[in-house]
Amino acid sequence: MRTITMEPGFTVHAEGSCLISFGDTRVLCTASVEERVPPFLRGKGEGWVTAEYGMLPRATHTRGSREAAKGKQSGRTQEIQRLIGRSLRAVVDMKKLGERQITIDCDVIQADGGTRTASISGAWVALRIAIDKLLASGALKEDPIIQQVAAISCGIHQGTPVLDLDYIEDSSAEADANFVLTGDSKIAEVQATAEGATFDEEELLRLLRLARIGCGQIFAAQRQATGR
Amino acid sequence: MRTITMEPGFTVHAEGSCLISFGDTRVLCTASVEERVPPFLRGKGEGWVTAEYGMLPRATHTRGSREAAKGKQSGRTQEIQRLIGRSLRAVVDMKKLGERQITIDCDVIQADGGTRTASISGAWVALRIAIDKLLASGALKEDPIIQQVAAISCGIHQGTPVLDLDYIEDSSAEADANFVLTGDSKIAEVQATAEGATFDEEELLRLLRLARIGCGQIFAAQRQATGR
Amino acid sequence: MRTITMEPGFTVHAEGSCLISFGDTRVLCTASVEERVPPFLRGKGEGWVTAEYGMLPRATHTRGSREAAKGKQSGRTQEIQRLIGRSLRAVVDMKKLGERQITIDCDVIQADGGTRTASISGAWVALRIAIDKLLASGALKEDPIIQQVAAISCGIHQGTPVLDLDYIEDSSAEADANFVLTGDSKIAEVQATAEGATFDEEELLRLLRLARIGCGQIFAAQRQATGR
Amino acid sequence: MRTITMEPGFTVHAEGSCLISFGDTRVLCTASVEERVPPFLRGKGEGWVTAEYGMLPRATHTRGSREAAKGKQSGRTQEIQRLIGRSLRAVVDMKKLGERQITIDCDVIQADGGTRTASISGAWVALRIAIDKLLASGALKEDPIIQQVAAISCGIHQGTPVLDLDYIEDSSAEADANFVLTGDSKIAEVQATAEGATFDEEELLRLLRLARIGCGQIFAAQRQATGR
Amino acid sequence: MRTITMEPGFTVHAEGSCLISFGDTRVLCTASVEERVPPFLRGKGEGWVTAEYGMLPRATHTRGSREAAKGKQSGRTQEIQRLIGRSLRAVVDMKKLGERQITIDCDVIQADGGTRTASISGAWVALRIAIDKLLASGALKEDPIIQQVAAISCGIHQGTPVLDLDYIEDSSAEADANFVLTGDSKIAEVQATAEGATFDEEELLRLLRLARIGCGQIFAAQRQATGR
Amino acid sequence: MRTITMEPGFTVHAEGSCLISFGDTRVLCTASVEERVPPFLRGKGEGWVTAEYGMLPRATHTRGSREAAKGKQSGRTQEIQRLIGRSLRAVVDMKKLGERQITIDCDVIQADGGTRTASISGAWVALRIAIDKLLASGALKEDPIIQQVAAISCGIHQGTPVLDLDYIEDSSAEADANFVLTGDSKIAEVQATAEGATFDEEELLRLLRLARIGCGQIFAAQRQATGR
Repeated sequence: MRTITMEPGFTVHAEGSCLISFGDTRVLCTASVEERVPPFLRGKGEGWVTAEYGMLPRATHTRGSREAAKGKQSGRTQEIQRLIGRSLRAVVDMKKLGERQITIDCDVIQADGGTRTASISGAWVALRIAIDKLLASGALKEDPIIQQVAAISCGIHQGTPVLDLDYIEDSSAEADANFVLTGDSKIAEVQATAEGATFDEEELLRLLRLARIGCGQIFAAQRQATGR
Repeated sequence: MRTITMEPGFTVHAEGSCLISFGDTRVLCTASVEERVPPFLRGKGEGWVTAEYGMLPRATHTRGSREAAKGKQSGRTQEIQRLIGRSLRAVVDMKKLGERQITIDCDVIQADGGTRTASISGAWVALRIAIDKLLASGALKEDPIIQQVAAISCGIHQGTPVLDLDYIEDSSAEADANFVLTGDSKIAEVQATAEGATFDEEELLRLLRLARIGCGQIFAAQRQATGR
Repeated sequence: MRTITMEPGFTVHAEGSCLISFGDTRVLCTASVEERVPPFLRGKGEGWVTAEYGMLPRATHTRGSREAAKGKQSGRTQEIQRLIGRSLRAVVDMKKLGERQITIDCDVIQADGGTRTASISGAWVALRIAIDKLLASGALKEDPIIQQVAAISCGIHQGTPVLDLDYIEDSSAEADANFVLTGDSKIAEVQATAEGATFDEEELLRLLRLARIGCGQIFAAQRQATGR
Repeated sequence: MRTITMEPGFTVHAEGSCLISFGDTRVLCTASVEERVPPFLRGKGEGWVTAEYGMLPRATHTRGSREAAKGKQSGRTQEIQRLIGRSLRAVVDMKKLGERQITIDCDVIQADGGTRTASISGAWVALRIAIDKLLASGALKEDPIIQQVAAISCGIHQGTPVLDLDYIEDSSAEADANFVLTGDSKIAEVQATAEGATFDEEELLRLLRLARIGCGQIFAAQRQATGR
Repeated sequence: MRTITMEPGFTVHAEGSCLISFGDTRVLCTASVEERVPPFLRGKGEGWVTAEYGMLPRATHTRGSREAAKGKQSGRTQEIQRLIGRSLRAVVDMKKLGERQITIDCDVIQADGGTRTASISGAWVALRIAIDKLLASGALKEDPIIQQVAAISCGIHQGTPVLDLDYIEDSSAEADANFVLTGDSKIAEVQATAEGATFDEEELLRLLRLARIGCGQIFAAQRQATGR
Repeated sequence: MRTITMEPGFTVHAEGSCLISFGDTRVLCTASVEERVPPFLRGKGEGWVTAEYGMLPRATHTRGSREAAKGKQSGRTQEIQRLIGRSLRAVVDMKKLGERQITIDCDVIQADGGTRTASISGAWVALRIAIDKLLASGALKEDPIIQQVAAISCGIHQGTPVLDLDYIEDSSAEADANFVLTGDSKIAEVQATAEGATFDEEELLRLLRLARIGCGQIFAAQRQATGR
């Protein structure tokens, strides 16, 4: 597994922020608190957590086109930002959050595989910091965060299950899985995909076990970064 | 599990077509063969299989807005069509397909839960028919289809694992999983998501076992529909 | 004239629906009732009837691109849906409809010429069924539908006026006309276009007379489908 | 009928141009010749004539939004520009035009009803001038223009057929028709629409006869403007 | 410097209008008054002046594509309309204008260099006329216009500072500058750009002095056109 | 003037990169080299330098919407990226660059005024590094960079000319100017705008002199960062 680093408070304006690195993959996660909710929640006394994801054009080995210039977000981008949002919502009590929305922006500064799992893992830190501020200011009475949440990619590479694939490993993996796990050892999301070869139940379980090990390390880093 | 029906050859122009029903969910799947490949594959002697997904505005309980009128496909639509494409590519040998592209259109005529899994299951039938025509005409020498592929949704509903959720069950499930399995009992894709409560490894495995039962029935229906 | 069939109630969710066939042309028409009107009508005590039109990508002989994926509706699509909406509004009393909107979706499942005229003819059936439900439930006191409305294409093909052109005839017609007629023998819309050769008043009248014959058959089929 | 004026050569860059006025309706029509054809015609030795239509935001009584700023052309705009293109193509021999495209831009400077019919009538003048230049320069050997083409709107207003409706009349007409006629008394296009009341064959014919009178005047003005 | 002409009241619907010509460059400027302000100003008792800019496709030597058809305004268009808006706001007292918005549309009918400076110069005339109407009608008690504003382009062409560049000069200038000056000899905006060669302070000042001479002529023409 | 820092080589994939800070304003600039030029330059033996600009949604005090999600770049964004591109092209000899394009991406990680001038100043560093690599590898024989280029904002704040405005100063400045200067004391671009009050020639010159001082410091920092 690659070295994980987290720099909480990387930017000054956001209510919470964290620059997370998994090896050469670096993602800036910011949490923005707004005292309003989307239309479908108005007047229900509940909050909302959502996420947006982006990648700087030259985060990658060769320059990709800028989504803002193309005029639309790719299917991949939308898929990832939906996953980040669901993962965070799985560990937040929306009633305790009250009628406010927290938007997590995950922007990939540099990419080397695992940008979606780094995003989820760093997003939790930004969210934790933003909510700690709301608790400190008295805007929130009770902590709406139920658990930690972290994510890691695993894959089957040359027949062997491996943890935390970088770009080169990911490109040649036979199967690719992303696990989103919670601090109490539960599963929030599994996405496992055959790339070159289908896989079986036993392999799926081996990947899940690897993921538990990886997420354990991330949970520790999250606690250290947030002083929890 | 709801009644499955498949009407191969539902439309006359497409090289392959199938109207698939899972209870009240009805999806029209068509396969269109084109003798050209996307730019990234030109000159490599390999083919491509891709999918597009859509839902008629009043396929659902209340009318949704038309994506063509809004001017963009939702993140959900893109996520689903990417899943369908990956699932089919997992069972096709692109070298044997040769430099041609097969586009599978999955259009939901009526929705009652499980539209993405019905789409994958019906798409295979449309693809099988289209490829049988290419084999019959001599355009293909060898069958590029390696296996059957089918998909089913499962979920944890009121604490109990259930198979093939309809819209009402799906809306209130604590966890929701889609399994894409192949005819030789392998896994092509797993997408399992906590909705109201996270879940554990044991529950994931129970859902996978249910999915095997469901896909078994779909495989039989596919063989009957295609005469294989 | 090709065989006309109408399957009322083809889908379960819409307030009214009809699958109409003119030979190989098949269009699914649904009517969706919403208890609100567009901004320009709010508070005026009047209703609105509007239509949207779409074609499945492989409804046609060769696959067309999906409008939702391209990000815009073609000029042809917009022209047709505007025509369908005007045709229905010509036979509805908006004051009697009250402040509600009925949206008719016409989606072409299979195309072989005459999709716009089949859409109008089937749309009336879906609208009739939806309004019958509103009358039956007591939501409407008086019937807002003033007349039947139906449409048929005619053209001059190899010098001869012909009724209900299929795709092959339409592609080679010298002139092409669509007539929208009402149950009391009036004209709601005429659209006649020279394709390869201009035409004269006498030819226009001959086409109109053919259209009267064709619409007579459609009116009968509509009455049978709706039990009126 | 309102006063018609035509100012040929209103702009200096276009190969042909004409500012046409029908009363307060003023449309600038320009013809641009390009020595290439759209992809579907390449290598066939035939030309193409197409049209685009626009309206300045404050051409109308109250300011409309700018289509370029909204990011799309309305259905009305597309319908009109398709009509202009068809009308011109009805009187041009594409083989004689050779592999070149002429684009007619019709931009409404001021609107008071009848902008589409003024556009067609002025477009012919711009086209005629542009083609005369091609003939004079020797780029064309034979004249590809077969006939004059002109258009006029008519309607039934307070029960009476009227010619050349201005904005006020048009807004309250029971029926509204646009006729595109050719110099040899033939019909290129009829679009007749019931607005408040359906109409019958007799009324349609009376409108057509009015249109013949109106187009007669426009043909004379076109001949004077182009010296033909 | 090229001949300047201004035709106030060129169109009938707009509250103010002016067709301005700088040689072959002709721009139609209209001012539209609306009794509402953008959201960020609501309830503040202040008004707003904004501008939109467009160019007819064949205003130029060769036809450009229509921005409405392309579905977006170019960066150049947006840059110019932002400049026009800023220039006008520099001479309007928004408190005296009250809660109303004036939109200036500058549409280039024919282009031969200097379209943005002609737009600003003509826009002031349209604005002046519209505000004079508001003053005459009693809707405004005090004149919100503080000063005249005009603009002119200058450049360094073959080493020599020149005033009011036409298209040919502009295309080959080493440096290109647009100055927006006010009636009391102040500067509202300077935009000076090196094209082929950078320039120095002395050259910038020589261009500014030329601009003062040019704007002096425009101010006189504005006063004559508006009777001030 | 705020503290300037430059971190060359901030990212690993780009041919050149620099994280530049002007106080709390931080912009990541990357240079991407591609061995192809835009269509208008093909076959001319010349290169091209262009720039794109973006701002992370929470770079600012309150979260702005993501341009990729909105589907278009704002006028401000386009204006800035056009300015960055022009500024760099003013100091590059395109013939010496040869048929290759260098794209500079300037992405604002944190904003506190002066993002466009920081972008230009950092972009030069990224460009310098990328070109040094091309020189070192032998791909380039001669250095195409003619001069350094840097930019700084100045303004009139409470009647006093000030250098390098932060967000608070910028928001309340009476006039705002951006100067792009070259290493040999020449001007590449001046953009000076009246915000609350117009200004005169004397003030413009005082701002230009301040800018010379500021750019002097930036030139020194650039030389240090690039070892030149």
